Amino acid sequence: MSRSLASMLAEGRHRYLIRVYYEDTDAGGIVYHASYLRFAERARTEALRDLGVPHAELVEQHGLIFVVRRVKVDYVRPARIDDALVVVTQPTTLGAASLGLRQVFQRPHVLQGAHVVQGVAQDEVLARAEVSLACVRVDGNGPARMPARWHEALAALAAAEGTTRSKE
Amino acid sequence: MSRSLASMLAEGRHRYLIRVYYEDTDAGGIVYHASYLRFAERARTEALRDLGVPHAELVEQHGLIFVVRRVKVDYVRPARIDDALVVVTQPTTLGAASLGLRQVFQRPHVLQGAHVVQGVAQDEVLARAEVSLACVRVDGNGPARMPARWHEALAALAAAEGTTRSKE
Amino acid sequence: MSRSLASMLAEGRHRYLIRVYYEDTDAGGIVYHASYLRFAERARTEALRDLGVPHAELVEQHGLIFVVRRVKVDYVRPARIDDALVVVTQPTTLGAASLGLRQVFQRPHVLQGAHVVQGVAQDEVLARAEVSLACVRVDGNGPARMPARWHEALAALAAAEGTTRSKE
Amino acid sequence: MSRSLASMLAEGRHRYLIRVYYEDTDAGGIVYHASYLRFAERARTEALRDLGVPHAELVEQHGLIFVVRRVKVDYVRPARIDDALVVVTQPTTLGAASLGLRQVFQRPHVLQGAHVVQGVAQDEVLARAEVSLACVRVDGNGPARMPARWHEALAALAAAEGTTRSKE
Repeated sequence: MSRSLASMLAEGRHRYLIRVYYEDTDAGGIVYHASYLRFAERARTEALRDLGVPHAELVEQHGLIFVVRRVKVDYVRPARIDDALVVVTQPTTLGAASLGLRQVFQRPHVLQGAHVVQGVAQDEVLARAEVSLACVRVDGNGPARMPARWHEALAALAAAEGTTRSKE
Repeated sequence: MSRSLASMLAEGRHRYLIRVYYEDTDAGGIVYHASYLRFAERARTEALRDLGVPHAELVEQHGLIFVVRRVKVDYVRPARIDDALVVVTQPTTLGAASLGLRQVFQRPHVLQGAHVVQGVAQDEVLARAEVSLACVRVDGNGPARMPARWHEALAALAAAEGTTRSKE
Repeated sequence: MSRSLASMLAEGRHRYLIRVYYEDTDAGGIVYHASYLRFAERARTEALRDLGVPHAELVEQHGLIFVVRRVKVDYVRPARIDDALVVVTQPTTLGAASLGLRQVFQRPHVLQGAHVVQGVAQDEVLARAEVSLACVRVDGNGPARMPARWHEALAALAAAEGTTRSKE
Repeated sequence: MSRSLASMLAEGRHRYLIRVYYEDTDAGGIVYHASYLRFAERARTEALRDLGVPHAELVEQHGLIFVVRRVKVDYVRPARIDDALVVVTQPTTLGAASLGLRQVFQRPHVLQGAHVVQGVAQDEVLARAEVSLACVRVDGNGPARMPARWHEALAALAAAEGTTRSKE
């Protein structure tokens, strides 16, 4: 098997499986609200890797990095210790130096073994995030156009979903 | 001295000093974006304590807890290791079972010793957060009116700032 | 496939694959030292799940929980962003209410796709941890004998490795 | 007031006050075991700052950094949400390029307001840590003698406590 089933790209959406451990929870007995931002970043990183544009390449070959400019999270239902969550990531906007993503956290109705099961109608939505990323230079933090290969890979993914392309 | 100067309530605003440690940063050399949610929660907790309504009392005496329903963060400038940040917290909306807060992260222009200096015009804004909290029952997670003493304390703070009160 | 290849139990050792994300690193450009404790806990949790004794069962059916009594970590070489680490977990001591584990963090020489590759001679050791766990009651925190099925599962694993059994 | 009372150096020991927030706890209702490493690092950082040798200076002026080589923690009693902990930090060994510290986590018997109270006999010990630090070059990670001013400051502190000096 060439890839972990914990990460899967299909139909313009990336699915990534997260398991909740004690580190992710708080004394309220639920997943700590900031943990969702960590989960979302893991999912974004694997989505880029699955697209063939790993961010390590962006840093090392181009001196560029994606930084978070804005994040919004709606918390719908609590997640708990040992839950398996699927993070579904889709592009929503794509600019020359910017990328918008929608990231939805779901608890799958059925989870067989530890691999990602296709979302079905009964999946429970636990949280929804909107994330705005900017491509900036590692040295000076100024915005920079992302490499053509990156833009193409993201545009192809976006096309599969009817993403809005912005001119930036 | 009865209180640490790291936390201060005045004119409808609460100021709380945060020092950035390695735990808060990432390999990009800046404060990790999810760390701001942790900082914001520390500041909220101390704001309630300074108002005389510590959340431990809410849990133990009333079986209630504030949970985060929605959070939005705009990242303006990066913070770095050893920076001293001031989190300025103000109520924006107050309902029977809900509380909205604006939390602004600033790097003070002048910081003398380790205590909170009044924000002046030159303070740099690093990030701005809007946080919506709901008061829920610890047992079942359903919404619940906050205790009268809590509502009054928050209303008094809100009055000092012209907060919108919603009927919820 | 019934299980993710990210977790594998064989020959008295459990192997678990970790990917390093920004959340795990610090401004020194390397994995933050406390992150290894989080990685170790993930690996232990999956080791128990793979043994057929998930800790959720321990809590829910028996009112018991494993807590960390002592931990020692030697940091040998730094890990960095995007590194794939394998955590190799082996029991070292087994008592009626206690469990000792050795957990070694390695950077595999060859990593094909995202699945766990058998450790070979060239694997780099990044860190070594020794962890002492106690089985305690969830309510009162006092020590408690672990359930027979748990002890047997751990004893079988230990037998494969020549673990010392202590009488506690 | 020139300094926060949350940090205090006296008689060869540094005391640093930590407040426990939700971010530090887990679903077991107690402080997550890895959080103690974060607390210990905050306390070390403030101890150096109070000694007049802030680590930012070490990095920026000398291109050096302290890294953790070994850590050992004994967990004695659990800490909980809203607890105020005092971290007592003392040097135990001092070499040309190394520093050993003992860091004890206590729950003060009496805590007035939010400032650090002198430890008294009734203080509860919650955890004890032994930390070995190495001074290394930021660029290449090799060991390096710490600057004379640093060594002197640490030696003076160590002398107040009968620390063992090693020749390294």
